[in-house]
Amino acid sequence: MNVSFFQELLNSIAERGRALLDGSSAAASGSTLTELARSLLSGRGEASGVALAGEILSAYSRADEAGKLEFFRFLLNQLTPDQEEVFTAARAYLEDASQKTLSELEMAVESPRQEFFRRLNLAPGATRCIVAMRADLIAMLPQVPELRLVDADLMHLLGSWFNRGFLVLRRIDWSTSASILEKIIEYEAVHEIRGWEDLRRRLDPADRRCFGFFHPSLVDEPVIFVEVALTAEIPASIQDLLAAQVAQDSEAKSPTTAVFYSISNCQVGLRGISFGNFLIKQVAEDLAKEMPSLKTFVTLSPAPRFAAWLVRTANEDGSQLDAETVTLLEDSSWAAHAEYHERLKSVLMPLVAEYFMVARTGNGSPVDPVARFHLGNGARLERVNWLGDKSARGLRQSHGVMVNYLYDLDDIEKNHEAYVNKGKIAASKAVRSLVTSSARTKLDNKKRKEADMPANATAAVDE
Amino acid sequence: MNVSFFQELLNSIAERGRALLDGSSAAASGSTLTELARSLLSGRGEASGVALAGEILSAYSRADEAGKLEFFRFLLNQLTPDQEEVFTAARAYLEDASQKTLSELEMAVESPRQEFFRRLNLAPGATRCIVAMRADLIAMLPQVPELRLVDADLMHLLGSWFNRGFLVLRRIDWSTSASILEKIIEYEAVHEIRGWEDLRRRLDPADRRCFGFFHPSLVDEPVIFVEVALTAEIPASIQDLLAAQVAQDSEAKSPTTAVFYSISNCQVGLRGISFGNFLIKQVAEDLAKEMPSLKTFVTLSPAPRFAAWLVRTANEDGSQLDAETVTLLEDSSWAAHAEYHERLKSVLMPLVAEYFMVARTGNGSPVDPVARFHLGNGARLERVNWLGDKSARGLRQSHGVMVNYLYDLDDIEKNHEAYVNKGKIAASKAVRSLVTSSARTKLDNKKRKEADMPANATAAVDE
Amino acid sequence: MNVSFFQELLNSIAERGRALLDGSSAAASGSTLTELARSLLSGRGEASGVALAGEILSAYSRADEAGKLEFFRFLLNQLTPDQEEVFTAARAYLEDASQKTLSELEMAVESPRQEFFRRLNLAPGATRCIVAMRADLIAMLPQVPELRLVDADLMHLLGSWFNRGFLVLRRIDWSTSASILEKIIEYEAVHEIRGWEDLRRRLDPADRRCFGFFHPSLVDEPVIFVEVALTAEIPASIQDLLAAQVAQDSEAKSPTTAVFYSISNCQVGLRGISFGNFLIKQVAEDLAKEMPSLKTFVTLSPAPRFAAWLVRTANEDGSQLDAETVTLLEDSSWAAHAEYHERLKSVLMPLVAEYFMVARTGNGSPVDPVARFHLGNGARLERVNWLGDKSARGLRQSHGVMVNYLYDLDDIEKNHEAYVNKGKIAASKAVRSLVTSSARTKLDNKKRKEADMPANATAAVDE
Amino acid sequence: MNVSFFQELLNSIAERGRALLDGSSAAASGSTLTELARSLLSGRGEASGVALAGEILSAYSRADEAGKLEFFRFLLNQLTPDQEEVFTAARAYLEDASQKTLSELEMAVESPRQEFFRRLNLAPGATRCIVAMRADLIAMLPQVPELRLVDADLMHLLGSWFNRGFLVLRRIDWSTSASILEKIIEYEAVHEIRGWEDLRRRLDPADRRCFGFFHPSLVDEPVIFVEVALTAEIPASIQDLLAAQVAQDSEAKSPTTAVFYSISNCQVGLRGISFGNFLIKQVAEDLAKEMPSLKTFVTLSPAPRFAAWLVRTANEDGSQLDAETVTLLEDSSWAAHAEYHERLKSVLMPLVAEYFMVARTGNGSPVDPVARFHLGNGARLERVNWLGDKSARGLRQSHGVMVNYLYDLDDIEKNHEAYVNKGKIAASKAVRSLVTSSARTKLDNKKRKEADMPANATAAVDE
Repeated sequence: MNVSFFQELLNSIAERGRALLDGSSAAASGSTLTELARSLLSGRGEASGVALAGEILSAYSRADEAGKLEFFRFLLNQLTPDQEEVFTAARAYLEDASQKTLSELEMAVESPRQEFFRRLNLAPGATRCIVAMRADLIAMLPQVPELRLVDADLMHLLGSWFNRGFLVLRRIDWSTSASILEKIIEYEAVHEIRGWEDLRRRLDPADRRCFGFFHPSLVDEPVIFVEVALTAEIPASIQDLLAAQVAQDSEAKSPTTAVFYSISNCQVGLRGISFGNFLIKQVAEDLAKEMPSLKTFVTLSPAPRFAAWLVRTANEDGSQLDAETVTLLEDSSWAAHAEYHERLKSVLMPLVAEYFMVARTGNGSPVDPVARFHLGNGARLERVNWLGDKSARGLRQSHGVMVNYLYDLDDIEKNHEAYVNKGKIAASKAVRSLVTSSARTKLDNKKRKEADMPANATAAVDE
Repeated sequence: MNVSFFQELLNSIAERGRALLDGSSAAASGSTLTELARSLLSGRGEASGVALAGEILSAYSRADEAGKLEFFRFLLNQLTPDQEEVFTAARAYLEDASQKTLSELEMAVESPRQEFFRRLNLAPGATRCIVAMRADLIAMLPQVPELRLVDADLMHLLGSWFNRGFLVLRRIDWSTSASILEKIIEYEAVHEIRGWEDLRRRLDPADRRCFGFFHPSLVDEPVIFVEVALTAEIPASIQDLLAAQVAQDSEAKSPTTAVFYSISNCQVGLRGISFGNFLIKQVAEDLAKEMPSLKTFVTLSPAPRFAAWLVRTANEDGSQLDAETVTLLEDSSWAAHAEYHERLKSVLMPLVAEYFMVARTGNGSPVDPVARFHLGNGARLERVNWLGDKSARGLRQSHGVMVNYLYDLDDIEKNHEAYVNKGKIAASKAVRSLVTSSARTKLDNKKRKEADMPANATAAVDE
Repeated sequence: MNVSFFQELLNSIAERGRALLDGSSAAASGSTLTELARSLLSGRGEASGVALAGEILSAYSRADEAGKLEFFRFLLNQLTPDQEEVFTAARAYLEDASQKTLSELEMAVESPRQEFFRRLNLAPGATRCIVAMRADLIAMLPQVPELRLVDADLMHLLGSWFNRGFLVLRRIDWSTSASILEKIIEYEAVHEIRGWEDLRRRLDPADRRCFGFFHPSLVDEPVIFVEVALTAEIPASIQDLLAAQVAQDSEAKSPTTAVFYSISNCQVGLRGISFGNFLIKQVAEDLAKEMPSLKTFVTLSPAPRFAAWLVRTANEDGSQLDAETVTLLEDSSWAAHAEYHERLKSVLMPLVAEYFMVARTGNGSPVDPVARFHLGNGARLERVNWLGDKSARGLRQSHGVMVNYLYDLDDIEKNHEAYVNKGKIAASKAVRSLVTSSARTKLDNKKRKEADMPANATAAVDE
Repeated sequence: MNVSFFQELLNSIAERGRALLDGSSAAASGSTLTELARSLLSGRGEASGVALAGEILSAYSRADEAGKLEFFRFLLNQLTPDQEEVFTAARAYLEDASQKTLSELEMAVESPRQEFFRRLNLAPGATRCIVAMRADLIAMLPQVPELRLVDADLMHLLGSWFNRGFLVLRRIDWSTSASILEKIIEYEAVHEIRGWEDLRRRLDPADRRCFGFFHPSLVDEPVIFVEVALTAEIPASIQDLLAAQVAQDSEAKSPTTAVFYSISNCQVGLRGISFGNFLIKQVAEDLAKEMPSLKTFVTLSPAPRFAAWLVRTANEDGSQLDAETVTLLEDSSWAAHAEYHERLKSVLMPLVAEYFMVARTGNGSPVDPVARFHLGNGARLERVNWLGDKSARGLRQSHGVMVNYLYDLDDIEKNHEAYVNKGKIAASKAVRSLVTSSARTKLDNKKRKEADMPANATAAVDE
């Protein structure tokens, strides 16, 4: 798909259009971003539209922080439905609620920002710029929360454009172009890739795989990618997995287990538009087809809020840990001293089980965000791995704990429905048996309280 | 872009999901299209969503006319905003017109059909099906005009998905796949292609070109294509152009003129979403780059309403033709008799000029639809060709007249703005001089009447 | 593989070089083909070599029959080792047979034609031209048999360039480019393809396949291709096979049998360089991978010399047929009269068996050329099909008989070795049991006579 | 061109064949490399040929140094024409020198090694292995010079297979696959590339280019590549060139000069088969087409033997340098001290001119190997650059001198012919004027002596 060829041609048209703009309106060269934006919507010609769209993207790219903020405020305050029209249409509907008045009301309230962004997309390379524009906008939201309305329009549009029906799965390997591979190094969010040699170890060996979703308009970077290891059993430690020598030939040819050990979203500007669920399932299907020996599809995942939760519950309910343990856990040096391992393990493992199986956020969801993702996808919490991640970050965030989520293709839908509709957490017997009776009591209390609550806030250990 | 690979994988997921549906809801296999559609919007799981979307598309494809109508009526009547919610939001906005209440009103009135179609697009191959669905719907509109509301939503969504920013230009030639080429034969709308040998004469010679816009989700068919001949001068007759032997080598290497002699839209389901303007300009730029000898970009176009207009004006204003001429023109046999040509030419050419330069529709636009398209794109009416199309259709529709529209890249924007904003018709001196003084008077009267009218209804001969 | 891009560049170099030639040697423009050919070998510059090679190919393409013959005679008589050098080297070797003198003798006798053709191949598009040149040469051989020496050099070189290691297998289907597909129509040698719609029936249905070997230097045409039908059982009639409606979906998804019903060599200029064996085995492997349900790989093949053999043996040994049968078989009208079928079948089938299993050419090979090919590849003669081909050609050549050769991947090598080394014909029990006892006796006699002959001339029915 | 797909299929055939071999000849698994090699030539079946070829390549790859040597010795001593046959054919030719006896002699002496290697090439991936095999062989030649005969056969065959007509030019840039790019890092022979970031600086900026010749059978590595910088003038220093910031936009858009600053052969196994001349000219044509602003095509090249030549002439003729200069030049530290530069420049520049324009090897060629290459291609020695390469290697080999060779497309052929036929060295006036009168006298003496010598050993300064 020769997009660059396409966009090159668009360029020339845009340039020509720009020349016209310069000529016809003396002010054009000095036009502010907001003046240009206004023209784009009022302009009636398509050709000038392309030129104007190009102008706007170019002016935007040159703008500083203040200029961008001004532009977003313009979108917020000016590209807004005409109040009188909305009044009229709203009154008409209230008087006579017909499909005709509804349709007129719908048209009256539609944010002109949506049409603005659609026209902006005429310019060459615009989709990429619009995604980047939203990344800028997201960064401003904490300071300027009212821009959420602009963000809602952008996300609405990008959600439609980046509909999964338009994404394409492609394998990423050592024969992939360097321009894409450097994005993999840059975007890997979970387990840092330290340069090209490290990247090669993730992609090139016969027992490693990487797949990404690509959108035709973002040709040289994925929107999301997943790294996979093909192994003989479910792995318990990320360091062991990454350090592993390439499996012996025979093993590499008939691995039984595909381990999804890292999933990274690449585009901040697409935040809130989720692809991960789909990517995992598609890759699982793909691998199962390619290698019939693969029977087990599993993750090796962090428990990123465990340590924080432990502190918080201690503050709220009184610590479940004795003072010495608390002291030990304060820094991560214990991990280097094998003599502490057994004791800490016996103390922490039940708490990990409680963290995953019993603890809930205010709205009744599991506390662990990774758990929410995989359970929501229909996976099952399969195993808790003591000292699965001995990296500084792993010890700090989760006292080294990692977990495996199992994607059993036959149960995915059932687990997903049970989780979404009844809040049931699918877990293996081994994990469930780690939950202590006192934790179980807390859970029962929760259940009782939630009896009257709507279904999706319920939570249950499935026994 | 390996879409088929992608969609194959989706298939398996969809199938698996379908199995679940069958199991979990006994009624599934017997579900009506509308029950399935309702589930798609209420369903909360993505995986079930893919399966449901596939079910709906499959059920739709099996449905008969009545079933499809029932489905569209369901979309019209049931997938509609909740009236109480709209009432509440409308009242809130009328009381306090803030961005917050506006945003809530916007959400309350958004047609659930849009979200429905977005979810439908999750299924493999859905985009193509949705385009086909709209073609069905368009065919029903004359009988069931209230479905226009559903059509509006579909067109809105498809307009966003088929935004020009997502289209790709590709050359179509004899090395293009047979599956695309047979679509060219099928879709050619202007000058019929009679089988593969005829197609080859349009594509293969060194002085012929064909280009199409493709969308990544409709991989094996263009959304629009244009046929081009490279010549040494502006052609006057379509029969001569199509019959021409391949130009001599030297000529083929440095043609001066690119003739756009046929533009065909391929997808009924994309009606109202226009690509032609963009295609012509892009192809012109492309060819100019490839062949610097090309200086003139011109069409050879029909005047499809000329004969009908002649009859109508005769009825309205009294005929401008004597009885003998009227009789002659009644059938097309005169064209075969050279002795009539001169006389008819002298009578008809000024009328053709009036048809193009003076005649207007109710809303002030030129009567000729092809003229509206090219003038709206910024082209200039360059020449009227007597006996340019001697085919039965050509004689019947326009008494054999064809015209050339010239795309002068330096004037395109200016012409376009003048046409759109002031109704000015760009035409060569030669064409303008064909307008008789009495026709000119009619025009001046129109202008006087329109002096108070809004700009875009004005029309003017540019002198 | 952007060969055309590559060759375009070469073109410019060649043109520039040609200009130089024109300038430096006044005679260049008037140079004869043979003068140019001589320069190519004597010229010491690579750049001039490219230009000269281009000149030669261009002059050759303009030459008439007589000019080409003169050119080949020049190659035969002039591009020949220096006699004195060969004398010297031959004497030196006879005196002292060392590796040094051998190597010098080898250099002295190497035909300069080989180096000539290698240099010729520098020009853009030369490989294709050289293949075509050999086709011309082959056509002249019957009249000018001494050109066999030139042909031997060309075939030697082309055999090296078209080594199977350089061929690539590609599927040919309805998404293949029209320029390749028209070659398929043109080259189909076994069962004529009547236009594009007929072609589509061979390629497009889910139960049909076509594969070809391509060489990188002949990008838009295969060197050989095979047509395959996927069926539920071994077919007995080519007319039934070609007429078959597309199999039901379920059948199409799990066919058990792949039928190779037509294999066509495309390049006369590559005659004697065989690819068919390799193509069949590779396609069989490929299909077996793609569709695990395929268990049987079989041909549906003609018996092209059966009728002729029958006449010849009648002349030699006295007819094995009664007069009435001989009369019946004289024309093909019997096939349309079912009342003759049984009788003719009972008479002919044993003779077919004798034709395949017993009859031998002078050098001990089977009489049937198709049998020689498939048996040589390791296939087994599986079944004789009465009235397998009712076409005029089928009735004329083989009284309508067709046969199936079975490729059992586990036996291929064994059969091949037995056939090549011991002349054993692998055949099914059913075919072997058709051989009558008198035919068997002939065979035993042959065996006895051949006891002293070299192995590869032996022939045996494997019992 | 899906070669890997192709080779995968071949693999299966080879494996199957191997199984047969194992079964039919008990000794197979224990067969030595030489036994296998013998079988390949004697074996008469194609299928077993593929298997055997695979076996040989696999056995070869497992062999140690001694095993490989044994194998090459086998090829040398055993795969040799039959002495008696050669005797007979030689005598027959001496008695009656006809085309028939010549042809028989030719067949009798052809080295069976050639057929051996052609059969070896049937195995999947064989071409690559055979190239690697020759690299091994080349490494053994100094110790085992008699293997030159085997090498001659291999080179003959590889020269035919890697005929330029089969090579394809492709641009190498940052969107090229990592597996090719790592080869670029590995093979760069002239100016080392220090990792991926350094590579990116050579490929990615708008004013840098890299092109390689690829062979279809060596898909993921070039056979040769060239690095190019696009500049505003002829550069004088490699360090400045490599350090240059990307040119300003306007400059990058219309550079005037393409600088070929590094050419690297990638395949030791293709030594002696030259591609460089062709690559430079093709890239020059290509760039000239892409960027009409390019007018000058020039190298920035080392003078790798200058320092060594200076020492040698001092030894032979008495030094042309005073003692202090000799001492200064002994190490490279002078380059860091600007105060020495002027004096050394005035002394060395005339000697550089003598080195290039006057000095000759025993067979009358220029002493500088890079000069021989570019002058042989038809380039002109354009400029000598004082301190063009301040790297340790540059100072050691050439006291920092670099030169530019100019490729003037209009003179290339003329220069080439004059160089090859008359030994004339094309040089700019500036370079010629650097030659001192005493050097000029030496040259005249040489000319006088060479008056009777064959043309290609002559050398002349063109004045």
